[in-house]
Amino acid sequence: MSELTIWTYDWVPKGPRGFVRDLRLRWACEEAELAYTVRTVPFDGRETNHLARQPFGQVPFLSDGELQMFESGAGVLHLARKAEKLMPRDPVGEAHTLHWAISALNSIEMVTVPWWFLEMSGKEDNALAGWMGMRLQQLENVLSERDWLAAGRFTAADLLMADVLRVSKVRSFGNRPATEAYVTCATNRPAFKRAYADQMAHFEAADEKRA
Amino acid sequence: MSELTIWTYDWVPKGPRGFVRDLRLRWACEEAELAYTVRTVPFDGRETNHLARQPFGQVPFLSDGELQMFESGAGVLHLARKAEKLMPRDPVGEAHTLHWAISALNSIEMVTVPWWFLEMSGKEDNALAGWMGMRLQQLENVLSERDWLAAGRFTAADLLMADVLRVSKVRSFGNRPATEAYVTCATNRPAFKRAYADQMAHFEAADEKRA
Repeated sequence: MSELTIWTYDWVPKGPRGFVRDLRLRWACEEAELAYTVRTVPFDGRETNHLARQPFGQVPFLSDGELQMFESGAGVLHLARKAEKLMPRDPVGEAHTLHWAISALNSIEMVTVPWWFLEMSGKEDNALAGWMGMRLQQLENVLSERDWLAAGRFTAADLLMADVLRVSKVRSFGNRPATEAYVTCATNRPAFKRAYADQMAHFEAADEKRA
Repeated sequence: MSELTIWTYDWVPKGPRGFVRDLRLRWACEEAELAYTVRTVPFDGRETNHLARQPFGQVPFLSDGELQMFESGAGVLHLARKAEKLMPRDPVGEAHTLHWAISALNSIEMVTVPWWFLEMSGKEDNALAGWMGMRLQQLENVLSERDWLAAGRFTAADLLMADVLRVSKVRSFGNRPATEAYVTCATNRPAFKRAYADQMAHFEAADEKRA
């Protein structure tokens, strides 16, 4: 059994806490009961201080023994290959987990993150609001008819989709009861709660050192 | 050997031709020498007429025997699992192909498509230009030091990344010689040229029927 290490920042400001994407990897490991260690790179100088391991200067990245990977979505899919709890082993269950995982990253998050970015810039008219509303409604239609996206149970696809959707501004955009129930259900999972609490505690401990 | 079918629209306007994402699946099949058939769903009424197979009303989707998948990124990764030409079989080569494939979809395209969308809306100030410039420069730095993203050779990650980058407005954004050489190299591959010519011919033939 190779050793899993999740790399994140040593500290971040209060705003992003609970949403730093190391949470996706923590959550995946918690769901799959995979042992892991958390290690850090400095937040200060992040633009250039770990480009060899993450070419966009972000976190997280993952070590699995000798193997090193970046991109939280890729890390989750890598962990899913190790753990049936995250991805069924049958070809149909695996394919459907994969296409919904990619949907989370490339159909939903591709709108929600830039939309959020424009919201933060404080302009009155968000030019991505129409596209965002359409995508979220299409997803609401799917979630009105099922509890989980793939294979009739929680998978890595739900982990990624729920993480994209739980961002507060996205969550409060429009009235989407099935999506709200889905996010609530996903974030009530003990594995999510452990991952979330651990990330919050990690950055809180860093405050004390930094003070 | 199961039968691969790539589903696309029966027709699209001239603008998107050459860029409809069935091209990613065609290109992957051409690289891997996987036999495939192309079938269509109507472009008219696309918002609702094939939601059972593509919940966002888009194309492409893929049939692999009984298995059905949507999301072009997922389809390419699925095909890559069948074909060493698209993804090395060793764990490191596979992991690096995966993280660069996800980078194309979730770090680069997550900026380029919304940026392009804002450009098309004709506003003078594109609020995503700074983020876009940063991401493309980070990628330029990587491509200045290697020919292909993963495993020292062309993989599914390059297929996705080059397809994201070849969009003309993205391609002409800033001066990025390594990226330009990379896109040229990728799109000069015979498999890309066949896929591109086939997509163009497909929609041209549709014009004649529609006329």
